[in-house]
Amino acid sequence: MSTTRGARQLTIKEVASHAGVSPMTVSRTLAGGRNVRPDLQERVMAAVRELGYYRNENARSLRPGQPSGLVGVAITNLANPYYGNFALGVEEVAAEHGRRILLGNTGEDDARERQLVSDFIGRQVDGLILVPTSGDAAHLRPERLGDVPLVLASRRVPGLDVDTVLLDDVGGSYRGTISLLDAGHTRIGFLGNRSSVFTGERRYRGYEQAMTERGVPIDPTIVARDQQDVEAASRAARAMLDREDAPTAIFSANNRNTIGALREIGRRIRDGLPGPRPAIVSFDDFELSELMPVPVTVIDHDARLLGREAAILLFSRLDDDSLDPAARTVELPVTVEHP
Amino acid sequence: MSTTRGARQLTIKEVASHAGVSPMTVSRTLAGGRNVRPDLQERVMAAVRELGYYRNENARSLRPGQPSGLVGVAITNLANPYYGNFALGVEEVAAEHGRRILLGNTGEDDARERQLVSDFIGRQVDGLILVPTSGDAAHLRPERLGDVPLVLASRRVPGLDVDTVLLDDVGGSYRGTISLLDAGHTRIGFLGNRSSVFTGERRYRGYEQAMTERGVPIDPTIVARDQQDVEAASRAARAMLDREDAPTAIFSANNRNTIGALREIGRRIRDGLPGPRPAIVSFDDFELSELMPVPVTVIDHDARLLGREAAILLFSRLDDDSLDPAARTVELPVTVEHP
Repeated sequence: MSTTRGARQLTIKEVASHAGVSPMTVSRTLAGGRNVRPDLQERVMAAVRELGYYRNENARSLRPGQPSGLVGVAITNLANPYYGNFALGVEEVAAEHGRRILLGNTGEDDARERQLVSDFIGRQVDGLILVPTSGDAAHLRPERLGDVPLVLASRRVPGLDVDTVLLDDVGGSYRGTISLLDAGHTRIGFLGNRSSVFTGERRYRGYEQAMTERGVPIDPTIVARDQQDVEAASRAARAMLDREDAPTAIFSANNRNTIGALREIGRRIRDGLPGPRPAIVSFDDFELSELMPVPVTVIDHDARLLGREAAILLFSRLDDDSLDPAARTVELPVTVEHP
Repeated sequence: MSTTRGARQLTIKEVASHAGVSPMTVSRTLAGGRNVRPDLQERVMAAVRELGYYRNENARSLRPGQPSGLVGVAITNLANPYYGNFALGVEEVAAEHGRRILLGNTGEDDARERQLVSDFIGRQVDGLILVPTSGDAAHLRPERLGDVPLVLASRRVPGLDVDTVLLDDVGGSYRGTISLLDAGHTRIGFLGNRSSVFTGERRYRGYEQAMTERGVPIDPTIVARDQQDVEAASRAARAMLDREDAPTAIFSANNRNTIGALREIGRRIRDGLPGPRPAIVSFDDFELSELMPVPVTVIDHDARLLGREAAILLFSRLDDDSLDPAARTVELPVTVEHP
């Protein structure tokens, strides 16, 4: 332990001595204060502030290679309820390991992702969990991260071989599309996000595999793959359903596209517009799907579990030096739930 | 600036010198790396790691009173989509001020809140934003927080006089209930969370005011005020709707109770059960409310704006020494949107 002033690591004993309480009182106060008299808690916290002590976290973080107790988490869209649950899963496992999460939202913006990652590294996080945007891998290479462990969730980044948690996107989309074909649909539209987004590409592939296997041609006029939010998805569904040869079913590749499609279908029903009321298969669950005016098949999975698994991969890297350095991929199963 | 080894604050020039690049290249790399050659970015980040430098954030945080650039945010339930948007609003404003958020979930658990707050303070956050649980104020007093500024959002804590952002809970609930009474309902149930939760109490008060003003007695057999999640809300709605004298309308005091009530109503419709299909007034919006099988009036507000306002109050405290120390309350308006 260095004894240099400023960076020196204070001990619980020194805080206890400064506050005039027992070391146990300091420990209990730092753990939340249960069973500690309020006035004693106040004295401990005053001493902590005066001495700049806190479980050595900040002092340690100055020395390269020492843990800061922080995990940087960057996700693409906190306004999507899916990612609230994802963040919750990460936070739960981090808390079980005595760590906190630094949370940032990239909004699918490459520049913002680069800035967040750089900032997290500068704050000397112990590890990073990222739902990557579709950008390149340069800023995520180990040498750019100072060898801070990185776990990707939901999506891979081309050319980057790191621990990754994925969903069974292809299999789920295949099975969902097959269920529409089994129900007799042959005119099945596709709504998804940008093909440059990893999940967008994989989910399209599952749809394509099912259609091809059954010999049903894909009609590009009812395939829309560029919607990143609900409003864009509504417009795409509208264009599709306005056609004379509108689809009788729609495969929606994510939550935001599903909500947009259902808004448009609801509008057409309210306004008494003619045309099909398409059955929906939705990758991603959403609340009250069972109350929709058209049948909705849900390709369901657990966002909280995805977050937990990502954190488990990260902490196994941090806590187990003997771990095989080869990148691991965990692919979580999805279930196809019929209405 | 101290020149003590370890806690010494390195400058951009020193990092540039170590990396063999220009100071501008260091600045640009730390800001995200746009327009900087990948190999140069790598050298800068290697130097940052080797020297333990990052915009002085960690070095400064060792010295009491110096900003860490971190804001601690503790919310009650990240699985509620409302709070994802709240966190997004806080994060946006924090990013505009060059800060990051440390995010924790309390799950409405007092002990967890105490622990999170203590941990955040120990990590020397510049400020705290808290959606408080219903617990007491002892661990949130200025002397316990080492005078780190605290902003409360959504809810007050009895006995704690700090900057607070609230919604117009009473006014919104009053107007929502009046709209049911105006539509001819006199048997109006109430679903809400614990009365010990500040918003639960305020929203009940708005309901009570409207009923009292119109001379409609409140029947405690159709008032349920203890549901913190969707499952409990479904059960409470079921008990209410199983009664011979079931309500013809339900006032739901938050998102989680609304979803639970609608699940139960959907089940009764699917199963062909007799009894009223109650109209709903929901405090808190939810997606696809317009597609529900019963009319839903939404008392709407903007969770993201609530988060933004909380952050704006906090940063005005941090950045403006001349600010009047008296606690400020911002009450955001709500809108009542009829189906």
